[in-house]
Amino acid sequence: MDIAELGERGLIARLGRFFGQAPHILVPGGDDAAVVAPGSGALVATTDLLFEDVHFGDRTTGPFDVGWRSAAANLSDLAAMGAAPFGMLVGLGLSPGTSVEWVEAFYEGFTACSAPVGALLLGGDTCRAKSRTVAVTALGTVDPRRILRRNAARPGDALVVTGHLGASRAGLAVLLEAERYAHLGSPVREAVVAAHRRPKPRLEVPPLVFALSGRAAAMDTSDGLTDAIAQVCAQSGCGAVVDLAVLPIDAATAQVAGKQAIAWALGGGEDYELLIALEPGAAVQLVERLAAIGIGGAIVGRAVAGDRVVDTEDRPLAAPGFEHFNRP
Amino acid sequence: MDIAELGERGLIARLGRFFGQAPHILVPGGDDAAVVAPGSGALVATTDLLFEDVHFGDRTTGPFDVGWRSAAANLSDLAAMGAAPFGMLVGLGLSPGTSVEWVEAFYEGFTACSAPVGALLLGGDTCRAKSRTVAVTALGTVDPRRILRRNAARPGDALVVTGHLGASRAGLAVLLEAERYAHLGSPVREAVVAAHRRPKPRLEVPPLVFALSGRAAAMDTSDGLTDAIAQVCAQSGCGAVVDLAVLPIDAATAQVAGKQAIAWALGGGEDYELLIALEPGAAVQLVERLAAIGIGGAIVGRAVAGDRVVDTEDRPLAAPGFEHFNRP
Repeated sequence: MDIAELGERGLIARLGRFFGQAPHILVPGGDDAAVVAPGSGALVATTDLLFEDVHFGDRTTGPFDVGWRSAAANLSDLAAMGAAPFGMLVGLGLSPGTSVEWVEAFYEGFTACSAPVGALLLGGDTCRAKSRTVAVTALGTVDPRRILRRNAARPGDALVVTGHLGASRAGLAVLLEAERYAHLGSPVREAVVAAHRRPKPRLEVPPLVFALSGRAAAMDTSDGLTDAIAQVCAQSGCGAVVDLAVLPIDAATAQVAGKQAIAWALGGGEDYELLIALEPGAAVQLVERLAAIGIGGAIVGRAVAGDRVVDTEDRPLAAPGFEHFNRP
Repeated sequence: MDIAELGERGLIARLGRFFGQAPHILVPGGDDAAVVAPGSGALVATTDLLFEDVHFGDRTTGPFDVGWRSAAANLSDLAAMGAAPFGMLVGLGLSPGTSVEWVEAFYEGFTACSAPVGALLLGGDTCRAKSRTVAVTALGTVDPRRILRRNAARPGDALVVTGHLGASRAGLAVLLEAERYAHLGSPVREAVVAAHRRPKPRLEVPPLVFALSGRAAAMDTSDGLTDAIAQVCAQSGCGAVVDLAVLPIDAATAQVAGKQAIAWALGGGEDYELLIALEPGAAVQLVERLAAIGIGGAIVGRAVAGDRVVDTEDRPLAAPGFEHFNRP
């Protein structure tokens, strides 16, 4: 069924089942605004816009995955601040030809990613648009003494990356050029496609960090590792040396990426891993604990004095992150 | 200058001056997320999406006014819950040809509407889009015993509307058909155009309501008065009788609207006034106090048993509010 047939109010009624219900939600979706008692701590808030044909497309991402990824991108920002999520708001711009099934599958993917980690759907807005648009706001709380800022790195810190890098970019490559990668086994293709479609925000990681160190800087790698290192260094007033030989790249990504593996690990983006700068002894233990809980990760370099971000042969890390306004 | 020349990071740097600075903002914009200590009370959150050529257009609304209106629309939702705002998040989708001046004027209008009422800019997101898109999230706090819900109207309540109705629709008419209304004096035209471009969220009103009554229902009239009454009645399980002869329509709107005045007051939308249902004695006092502070308002009808929303001659109020998915 087309959304124009159902109408806005009919659609909102159909979507009611996705709204969160919990004692701390005092007024759920359906009033002028949601009211929630978020509990103790400071409030953490972030918002993101995603557009069809810029951030997602029917060719690579069905509605369930658009929902999942748009929730994950925002939850990853909360993880990068050390926050625990409690609520989500979503604005959906829909072209009139959009089917009700598309919208419901979007909400299924959105809540499949967010509700299990405590981020309940609080409210939303649906309206007419030329092309599909997703606006997500994620809300969380954080102990003000345990905020993971970008500006807290110090020369001498080790740089830890959680999980693996480049897998989302490899998944996109397989989705865009299926024939080119058809010779690879389907487990390889499925692994990288899953990384692209269903990234997992690293909300478990900040508590591990603060159990080991009272100070740490962090940023997510949504725009690539190079971008994350550059931003943490710029805000912290330091430089970094990165060892490209030890970037965590899994076997499936390596097979798909071939010679591009390091470039995709550095600049592919949309991995939603965390870059964390902390004291080296704590970093070693953090990597052990990340391995123990099945996330994995690696020490990829160290913060140094100065402002240059280079590899171990003193070459600037040039691979750019995703700059949204670059002309194609 | 074109935003593509400046780049995303250059643009973000230029926009830094718009971010709020206050002791309760623990981490301002520029990190993965904003962190704020909102103070006591429950958290109120709402989000809205606005699209160029659906909700605004260059022909009728310059960038300052797009910013103002998008802030006002969300602050109006907070007012309708009885909340006091403390923060805003804004996502901007920009076509590559957009000028930096457009973006800065947008932020000037956005903060001119929001900062004076305590809603500081906490964070944002700018990215490439086919056409300009604005996603706003407004955050506020409310005493949980003083939440203005839509479902709290009771048969016998008076229905109060703040300010005047139809003025925004009249302003749009003047902007779209300048020649048709050229014969009216410029003060008339300017008054309705200002109402369209710079609506004022009624954040002063909820404290007046609760000073007079422990119970009230409210909704804003962003989609028209008929829509607001219908929704409050549906959620409260009551009907309403509306006296069309007493709708608050100012002289400028009446001149522009002519025979359409009542239709525009009922269904024009985007007035961002509040509909409030409360006990009749308190309603009389509320209207007096609204007059005393220069907002104005009127008792336009009463809630009744049943589920019908009719005028004083028992005719259903048919003028529809803005249904976003209706085909043109």
